[in-house]
Amino acid sequence: MSRTNHQLRLAQRPVGQPKPTDWDHVEEPVGDPGDGEFLVQVLHLSIDPAMRGWMNAGRSYIPPVEIGAVMRAAAVGRVVASRNPGFAVGDHVSGTFGVQEYCLSNGRGVTTVDPALAALPVHLGTLGLTGLTAYFGLLDIGRPQPGQTVVVSGAAGAVGSVVGQIAKILGCRVVGIAGGERKCRVLVDDFGFDAAIDYQSEDVRSALRRHAPDGVDVYFDNVGGDILDAVLTRLARGARIVICGAVSQYNNTEPVKGPSNYMSLLVNRASMTGMVVFDYADRYAEGIAQLAEWLAAGRLRSLEHVVSGGVAAFPETLLGLFRGENLGKLVLTVVDE
Amino acid sequence: MSRTNHQLRLAQRPVGQPKPTDWDHVEEPVGDPGDGEFLVQVLHLSIDPAMRGWMNAGRSYIPPVEIGAVMRAAAVGRVVASRNPGFAVGDHVSGTFGVQEYCLSNGRGVTTVDPALAALPVHLGTLGLTGLTAYFGLLDIGRPQPGQTVVVSGAAGAVGSVVGQIAKILGCRVVGIAGGERKCRVLVDDFGFDAAIDYQSEDVRSALRRHAPDGVDVYFDNVGGDILDAVLTRLARGARIVICGAVSQYNNTEPVKGPSNYMSLLVNRASMTGMVVFDYADRYAEGIAQLAEWLAAGRLRSLEHVVSGGVAAFPETLLGLFRGENLGKLVLTVVDE
Repeated sequence: MSRTNHQLRLAQRPVGQPKPTDWDHVEEPVGDPGDGEFLVQVLHLSIDPAMRGWMNAGRSYIPPVEIGAVMRAAAVGRVVASRNPGFAVGDHVSGTFGVQEYCLSNGRGVTTVDPALAALPVHLGTLGLTGLTAYFGLLDIGRPQPGQTVVVSGAAGAVGSVVGQIAKILGCRVVGIAGGERKCRVLVDDFGFDAAIDYQSEDVRSALRRHAPDGVDVYFDNVGGDILDAVLTRLARGARIVICGAVSQYNNTEPVKGPSNYMSLLVNRASMTGMVVFDYADRYAEGIAQLAEWLAAGRLRSLEHVVSGGVAAFPETLLGLFRGENLGKLVLTVVDE
Repeated sequence: MSRTNHQLRLAQRPVGQPKPTDWDHVEEPVGDPGDGEFLVQVLHLSIDPAMRGWMNAGRSYIPPVEIGAVMRAAAVGRVVASRNPGFAVGDHVSGTFGVQEYCLSNGRGVTTVDPALAALPVHLGTLGLTGLTAYFGLLDIGRPQPGQTVVVSGAAGAVGSVVGQIAKILGCRVVGIAGGERKCRVLVDDFGFDAAIDYQSEDVRSALRRHAPDGVDVYFDNVGGDILDAVLTRLARGARIVICGAVSQYNNTEPVKGPSNYMSLLVNRASMTGMVVFDYADRYAEGIAQLAEWLAAGRLRSLEHVVSGGVAAFPETLLGLFRGENLGKLVLTVVDE
């Protein structure tokens, strides 16, 4: 059976927001698995802010996507051919399969997922790296105590919505920062946040004075920029800031805006610490088990924003992410089973 | 015996660099100690970058000096009259006596010092809050391991020179950043640093590439601004940045320059943590004992830059500090015994 693989490859490094000319749409025949390999049909792609960073040259926590290479993406798929005893045809698998329809894999970094546990897109979100980022970032770096105030930005996004819900489970007061009335309503009504701040219509600093009157004990930052600076002015003594992302700065053509108010770290004996979920690989099972238990018990709600259109729709879907169009985890479906 | 007290009081809050008109020179008669009080004749004043912050309005780690109040300063002096059983006439004492010639005290926050242990200015420097800041900031926040690379800015200053020497005692590779060839020579020749970077004549980023080829494990930051940004580009995995001060920004009339490269914290899973020495008050004795032991053993050299001129010379001496004219701890002598 001869299959064709549609791929999206990086044509050049974007300056600012990625343009259509930064991508190459490529078709090539799908190869047969060699010894120890298997072929995955990609079903759903995870669309993440971090993707923008992977497109830049230079040292980071992961090598950049090379010019001409298939764009990196986490994905779930189904094994359609296998010469690897660990993966059988029909298995559902999760891995970094890239923005393409088929991926040959040797199994490294690939895990099987159970579609009976949750719908496949959930395995990219709450039960995937997204949920694990929220779980380890909040627990290990944020270390919130019951009764403390946790603030999260990008709160209606994939990571943020899970961070806030875990903080509620832990007995914290939770304030989310998001863009637009609808997202803020969802945070309070559906996710049980104590308060939400709409940065598009409110002054974040004065809203924090109202919603976090005793100061911010933990700030989980997904956005950077002016919102990070605003939260820095409202830290409680000994606060912990988790630096998970800086989505407001990823498409900059100007230099990144550093946090002018960083000396608040000194005034409040606070810390600001970067986290990368890959460091917790040997504890993923612990995280997934806990997240799955909370999901099953109805204590955690998983929200996915699933769009269709396949590989060809990737460039526009990624831009939509930076416009903040998604509520919850943004997933691009390649094939709906 | 009637004594006159010459004082320096804050006339108005400075904008940018303090001007002569920001100060009032005041003379008033010295009062007699009430019950439980004692009178201190101030001998030496500690001149610290933090003083500039104390002159600003607004919430910080310590209340601002009020307009019309005697300027706050750590000092050593001698008890010249006492109605407090804990402090006898002739005792040498250390405390926040202010920029004045005499201070009435009830003993709160005052400790006796032993002039036989070290010259009085040393009790403001290496055996005072300066040395304690270096000691606890480096050990508790920086947590350097033997063989790791420690970088310190303001390295020829009071805190920096002690930080670097302690790091050497702990078996680290130590790189100091300071302004001017003379300071850099002292760091290497007299304090035993492995290397020094002259930020006035070298590009800090490329010099770090040379002198810290494996990256920076601990950065003890006294200066902020461009130097902090340069060090952020050279962090090792898991690096700890100690935020002790930001002397490059204290006389700004523009907003503080935030560290544009702060996302290096994420790339390197690094942290940036503020420290205030006052938090370690219940461990001061431990710190002083260790510092005194290193001093006595000749493993730690204490360098004081002592200027004369008394209270009237304070405004100009403070400006000299911000011009970086001192090498080691800057001390203003009021009375030389």
